[in-house]
Amino acid sequence: MLKPILLLFGPNLNQIEKRDPALYGGRSLQEIVTAVRESVTAKDISIEYRHSNSEGVLIDILQEYSESALGIVFNPGALSHYSYALMDAIKDVRCPVIEVHFSNIHAREPFRHHSVTAAACSGVIAGFGWQGLALAVSHILSS
Amino acid sequence: MLKPILLLFGPNLNQIEKRDPALYGGRSLQEIVTAVRESVTAKDISIEYRHSNSEGVLIDILQEYSESALGIVFNPGALSHYSYALMDAIKDVRCPVIEVHFSNIHAREPFRHHSVTAAACSGVIAGFGWQGLALAVSHILSS
Amino acid sequence: MLKPILLLFGPNLNQIEKRDPALYGGRSLQEIVTAVRESVTAKDISIEYRHSNSEGVLIDILQEYSESALGIVFNPGALSHYSYALMDAIKDVRCPVIEVHFSNIHAREPFRHHSVTAAACSGVIAGFGWQGLALAVSHILSS
Amino acid sequence: MLKPILLLFGPNLNQIEKRDPALYGGRSLQEIVTAVRESVTAKDISIEYRHSNSEGVLIDILQEYSESALGIVFNPGALSHYSYALMDAIKDVRCPVIEVHFSNIHAREPFRHHSVTAAACSGVIAGFGWQGLALAVSHILSS
Amino acid sequence: MLKPILLLFGPNLNQIEKRDPALYGGRSLQEIVTAVRESVTAKDISIEYRHSNSEGVLIDILQEYSESALGIVFNPGALSHYSYALMDAIKDVRCPVIEVHFSNIHAREPFRHHSVTAAACSGVIAGFGWQGLALAVSHILSS
Amino acid sequence: MLKPILLLFGPNLNQIEKRDPALYGGRSLQEIVTAVRESVTAKDISIEYRHSNSEGVLIDILQEYSESALGIVFNPGALSHYSYALMDAIKDVRCPVIEVHFSNIHAREPFRHHSVTAAACSGVIAGFGWQGLALAVSHILSS
Amino acid sequence: MLKPILLLFGPNLNQIEKRDPALYGGRSLQEIVTAVRESVTAKDISIEYRHSNSEGVLIDILQEYSESALGIVFNPGALSHYSYALMDAIKDVRCPVIEVHFSNIHAREPFRHHSVTAAACSGVIAGFGWQGLALAVSHILSS
Amino acid sequence: MLKPILLLFGPNLNQIEKRDPALYGGRSLQEIVTAVRESVTAKDISIEYRHSNSEGVLIDILQEYSESALGIVFNPGALSHYSYALMDAIKDVRCPVIEVHFSNIHAREPFRHHSVTAAACSGVIAGFGWQGLALAVSHILSS
Amino acid sequence: MLKPILLLFGPNLNQIEKRDPALYGGRSLQEIVTAVRESVTAKDISIEYRHSNSEGVLIDILQEYSESALGIVFNPGALSHYSYALMDAIKDVRCPVIEVHFSNIHAREPFRHHSVTAAACSGVIAGFGWQGLALAVSHILSS
Amino acid sequence: MLKPILLLFGPNLNQIEKRDPALYGGRSLQEIVTAVRESVTAKDISIEYRHSNSEGVLIDILQEYSESALGIVFNPGALSHYSYALMDAIKDVRCPVIEVHFSNIHAREPFRHHSVTAAACSGVIAGFGWQGLALAVSHILSS
Amino acid sequence: MLKPILLLFGPNLNQIEKRDPALYGGRSLQEIVTAVRESVTAKDISIEYRHSNSEGVLIDILQEYSESALGIVFNPGALSHYSYALMDAIKDVRCPVIEVHFSNIHAREPFRHHSVTAAACSGVIAGFGWQGLALAVSHILSS
Amino acid sequence: MLKPILLLFGPNLNQIEKRDPALYGGRSLQEIVTAVRESVTAKDISIEYRHSNSEGVLIDILQEYSESALGIVFNPGALSHYSYALMDAIKDVRCPVIEVHFSNIHAREPFRHHSVTAAACSGVIAGFGWQGLALAVSHILSS
Repeated sequence: MLKPILLLFGPNLNQIEKRDPALYGGRSLQEIVTAVRESVTAKDISIEYRHSNSEGVLIDILQEYSESALGIVFNPGALSHYSYALMDAIKDVRCPVIEVHFSNIHAREPFRHHSVTAAACSGVIAGFGWQGLALAVSHILSS
Repeated sequence: MLKPILLLFGPNLNQIEKRDPALYGGRSLQEIVTAVRESVTAKDISIEYRHSNSEGVLIDILQEYSESALGIVFNPGALSHYSYALMDAIKDVRCPVIEVHFSNIHAREPFRHHSVTAAACSGVIAGFGWQGLALAVSHILSS
Repeated sequence: MLKPILLLFGPNLNQIEKRDPALYGGRSLQEIVTAVRESVTAKDISIEYRHSNSEGVLIDILQEYSESALGIVFNPGALSHYSYALMDAIKDVRCPVIEVHFSNIHAREPFRHHSVTAAACSGVIAGFGWQGLALAVSHILSS
Repeated sequence: MLKPILLLFGPNLNQIEKRDPALYGGRSLQEIVTAVRESVTAKDISIEYRHSNSEGVLIDILQEYSESALGIVFNPGALSHYSYALMDAIKDVRCPVIEVHFSNIHAREPFRHHSVTAAACSGVIAGFGWQGLALAVSHILSS
Repeated sequence: MLKPILLLFGPNLNQIEKRDPALYGGRSLQEIVTAVRESVTAKDISIEYRHSNSEGVLIDILQEYSESALGIVFNPGALSHYSYALMDAIKDVRCPVIEVHFSNIHAREPFRHHSVTAAACSGVIAGFGWQGLALAVSHILSS
Repeated sequence: MLKPILLLFGPNLNQIEKRDPALYGGRSLQEIVTAVRESVTAKDISIEYRHSNSEGVLIDILQEYSESALGIVFNPGALSHYSYALMDAIKDVRCPVIEVHFSNIHAREPFRHHSVTAAACSGVIAGFGWQGLALAVSHILSS
Repeated sequence: MLKPILLLFGPNLNQIEKRDPALYGGRSLQEIVTAVRESVTAKDISIEYRHSNSEGVLIDILQEYSESALGIVFNPGALSHYSYALMDAIKDVRCPVIEVHFSNIHAREPFRHHSVTAAACSGVIAGFGWQGLALAVSHILSS
Repeated sequence: MLKPILLLFGPNLNQIEKRDPALYGGRSLQEIVTAVRESVTAKDISIEYRHSNSEGVLIDILQEYSESALGIVFNPGALSHYSYALMDAIKDVRCPVIEVHFSNIHAREPFRHHSVTAAACSGVIAGFGWQGLALAVSHILSS
Repeated sequence: MLKPILLLFGPNLNQIEKRDPALYGGRSLQEIVTAVRESVTAKDISIEYRHSNSEGVLIDILQEYSESALGIVFNPGALSHYSYALMDAIKDVRCPVIEVHFSNIHAREPFRHHSVTAAACSGVIAGFGWQGLALAVSHILSS
Repeated sequence: MLKPILLLFGPNLNQIEKRDPALYGGRSLQEIVTAVRESVTAKDISIEYRHSNSEGVLIDILQEYSESALGIVFNPGALSHYSYALMDAIKDVRCPVIEVHFSNIHAREPFRHHSVTAAACSGVIAGFGWQGLALAVSHILSS
Repeated sequence: MLKPILLLFGPNLNQIEKRDPALYGGRSLQEIVTAVRESVTAKDISIEYRHSNSEGVLIDILQEYSESALGIVFNPGALSHYSYALMDAIKDVRCPVIEVHFSNIHAREPFRHHSVTAAACSGVIAGFGWQGLALAVSHILSS
Repeated sequence: MLKPILLLFGPNLNQIEKRDPALYGGRSLQEIVTAVRESVTAKDISIEYRHSNSEGVLIDILQEYSESALGIVFNPGALSHYSYALMDAIKDVRCPVIEVHFSNIHAREPFRHHSVTAAACSGVIAGFGWQGLALAVSHILSS
């Protein structure tokens, strides 16, 4: 049995179904996780997920999964743009961390064009809605 | 019976009575809430209040009151100046959110001249001490 | 008899009824002043108003009312964002000056996010349409 | 009879014949207006002109001609580079406003490279001396 | 017989009829050139035109026409905003070069507010659609 | 038969096998294209590829494939960071364009942290080596 | 009889006696002019003075005295820091213009450290209270 | 018995033994606290310590110890560089707060060169590893 | 007998007669000092002068004269624009220090528009050639 | 026989004899190459040269000569100041690349003070006219 | 016998007893050195000290002590904020260099918030008055 | 006999043999000067050299050699990046001054990418180690 893959979601993503459907697609976080699980064809992989609106709790979770996960697929929400503490936490994680944004952050307000957390990740995927999570998971499984 | 109005206070405002009286007036948060309640003449309105020093908990509370409040009067403290996560949370709130600062932020240090959360609120009141809260509440009631 | 309260309006506000109703509400300046007057329950207070498109004339008026007014409620329009001369004039005024913007300047173009005149005022109210004037007047009367 | 076209001139342009002839050509404002009038072949069009050194008076004039002019050809002089009040005034004008600079502002000091008023105009012409006014008038007449 | 006037078009303008009609008007480049030719009443003038998506080829063309053209009317497209090589090339051209933008670049994204190539031109026209080309041609013919 | 998917490569990527293997992996462009083709399980899809070191030629190719491709997977190389002309070209493309960078641009020099072309794409993938191309292709096929 | 010297005062200086005495000294403008006159030992020189709170009127006055004055001693107040229109006006003046600030602008708020009007003057004196005016007058008389 | 000294640690410092030993030395937080305690020769002093990854909890702790501690030695981690809320909290603390960084923040990435929290502390020590904590403690004891 | 006044000259001013006469007037430093002495009508005042090309020696001299001079007239040359060490030294001087520049620094290269040393002086005079020194001396004598 | 040395010239340098002789000296590119060849005393060295106005073609040429040249002496013209694609190409070249500018770029417009391509070269020579090329060639031969 | 420790003081610190006692404490440099010596309990260590107001002499001294000192405790005064030459000198020193500021530079003017010399030191201590020197010495002795 | 050529070295270059050999090559200044002398084939030329760590002394030397040298080859070290006083001194020198850096300053830290002294020199050579000095000398001899 492989180690699990963690889907980790930052501020405001727990109510994603209520946010602008043009940007976020209208599915709930639970539905998104289910869709990601269904996109995985490998049998022996478990997809866990966690959410917090708090930078500190997100760091706690990253530390918790640092060695026990196969990889972490992380949408830090708006914290991407200023949380150097989160950036430091990602640097300390032992497994690969992939940053995923549902919307194309480069096409939105200027403050979203720069991600300070991305510098600590192994890669970034933005603009593919929930399917960006599935792409990241498939990449981890194929690495 | 109307929905309640929420007074929401961010970092360091729970000890406001200990802060510079020239800027903050010397009353405790409890005394301030009482004064705001007394300023309301309508009978069927309840004024609730919550405080947290944590950005994440403030987002939790905004989500909790998003649909159940008539309006939210929010003093985000210094988080106003950098918390894009809070800005995103306010955008998702369904009822009106009014940002209130006790002091006139435009007359203080440069970093306080710009509020990133204000862009997501319906309006901003700064510089009137606790009475700014009362003005915001009276505006919500008259809308 | 109390000293009067002055409502002072800067550039382009004399034709406010022609501006974007989503931002400015469609009432004429005269209608707005009438509404503010009606919002005051105290009997012995007079609400005067003045308008000019000229920075220099606005300074003249601030000097004229400096000691004779109970307070000044001032919407400097776009001059808020660059008129240091107006900022100096407000500093010299002896009665309280409250800056009021009809729209939420923090949610508009970047150059409107910063107000140089606000630093010289006692407080700022933005985003409540004409009712912001009424809130400012009620604050002056209750101080 | 068509509505008139207004030629509007901002600070320092009333003495244009005294300014650097390499940049401004040596004609007086009156001579320039005459030349523009002579460039128009249509018979039933009147070309009016106004000048002021004052931002406030220029706003007054823009408001005055907003609906009564066929179009306004406006050289705001150095106010182009910082007068957001003028920008707001141009936005409120109902007829087309064309910004014209005698000199090529892009080839002069850095502060002249950016025009805040241009953003509110329908178009900009710079670097053709008084003939830029004639080009603007001919465009209004052909629209 | 006069020397010809060159209409020169930079990146993406060869497919202008497919771009946002609100900004570009919907005509093809061929149709625009025809319209410009028809706007010229002088008989002995030929209007040539060239297009390239490549900065280097545009420089080649500017060098080719430097002495053989009466004037060049140039829409450098987005290269206006960063191509110092093009700016140097325009400086070396012996005949007048007029920069024309179909849309009002001052009213679009911030990066379009500044033109580095404009500093090397004799003048700039922006915001008049294809008619800006005709205005430029008429100016060259009347100089 | 479906329309083809275009893999498009910008400056210096034709010699990717000679670049830093830690960043680029050591495979040649031809080997990478082959690997991407092998990653596709659908039978009726053709993967074409093109390369140019020239901004202008890349725009030509984008125009050529605008309507005939199912989607374009584009690695603009360093042009991502300053080519507004390429950004305009991508905006005009009718099929989806996905920007892919082999390396994680957010973890390299500051000038690579911002992509001006990304704003015009539907999404961005960075940091997964040649597999980023495969992820992009699989996304186009599943849309 | 020599041409007169003009003392010209910008916004807020007409009430200088009411401003911070530590910065401005407590004398009225009239008293200051008298003191300057008394400092002049030459008999045949007249010292005139003018004040306006308006940028436009100040330009009018500069144009009026351009040729008829021996020199102009100008305190533009806060307009020094942003009025490019005033800078242009000073450039057009035929007699020498000396900029004088009562306070040491370099020791106050950052926005006062830079004077755009100073670039057009022949010299600048700051920090000597009303005596700076006398120094400027004595310099004009000795030139 | 003296009041205790609090050692307070911010984000990611609970796993300091796993971070880059060249920067952090390889000891665990518990080992570091023990070493600091051993460095104190005074008998009647207790050294307490607390850690949190959360900005909000750190503020809670600062409030809790504000009056009960002899002094606080605080390593805010990356929060030093953007947490104005923490800066406000430190300002409100009644006992001295000393900021300590294990690494020399001035020799690392540019964002670490500036500390917003340091402005509210009585002093700063950086670059001495765990011994910086001991220096801070010895300073508090000798004050 | 009064204390002496010190004329202090920074880098490159010892060869002022060799510098651009349009900016510096062609007199040698010795001739300038003589002219300043001759401009003083008071009998019992001695004018001393010192020069150094070295920031450190200039600080030594400022310390030496701090209490023994009536005042210091200081032209720091280009050090004005970056020498914070000199600024600190001026702050510590007990007698008044007046900064004098021969040329109008506001009309030269941008780096000369800002003086960091001026903030520590009591006043600034720029643009009057050697006569600026005489104005400064006369001010010290009349204070 | 040694490998050849390539002289490579970027935009606008093919017409250098027509550019400002004060900056460029008046010789044609062909004459310059001849002069460089004549400056070489070694017999068995061939000096080749190439020119293009196109960034993309310059990259093609750099790739072509990467291994076959002894060294490349490159004047990228204005592309030096913004072409990150060229910078990447130079990094990939196997032989030494020396950047040469005819004029002293540090003494011209601000945008020419910074060279992004220079960072990838082994050295830079600027301000010696065509002789800078000869210096670079002599350095390659002596290495 | 151990190598000596050097206390090195930059501009203006030789007169520290005359500077603002709130920032600097009122002791003379000699008294401070004596106090530091008394703080050292080890017997066989000599504490030498040097001062200069000159950047160049400070570099001379750093070179002189580079190998002969056990460590250098350096207060560069305001040179910390702009002296890259000093930064280079510190990099070349063979023994550890600790930067010490008497005042908390982070709580003073913005230009003091950044230290360019600190990047070359092994650590920094600021805000502890003369005791900061003693802390640095004790650290060197315990290393 | 020709005038001598001066090799002038700024801060820290007197110990160049101790600095990073990858950047500086490991030779002492004396050895470097000898090598430069040996590179000169002309018989009647003397190569002098001077060094100082002090900006002021470097200005003294530049003044001393201004007319007596054939040319000056100057490595100002880190002073290149901020010493406007040195820039002014170079401007006043009558013979040609060539700036030489041993390392390629464009490939090092950002603050080294811009040289303020270079603007006053006739040319710049960087990145060729001690041979850059020889190239500069050979250029002076051939001019």
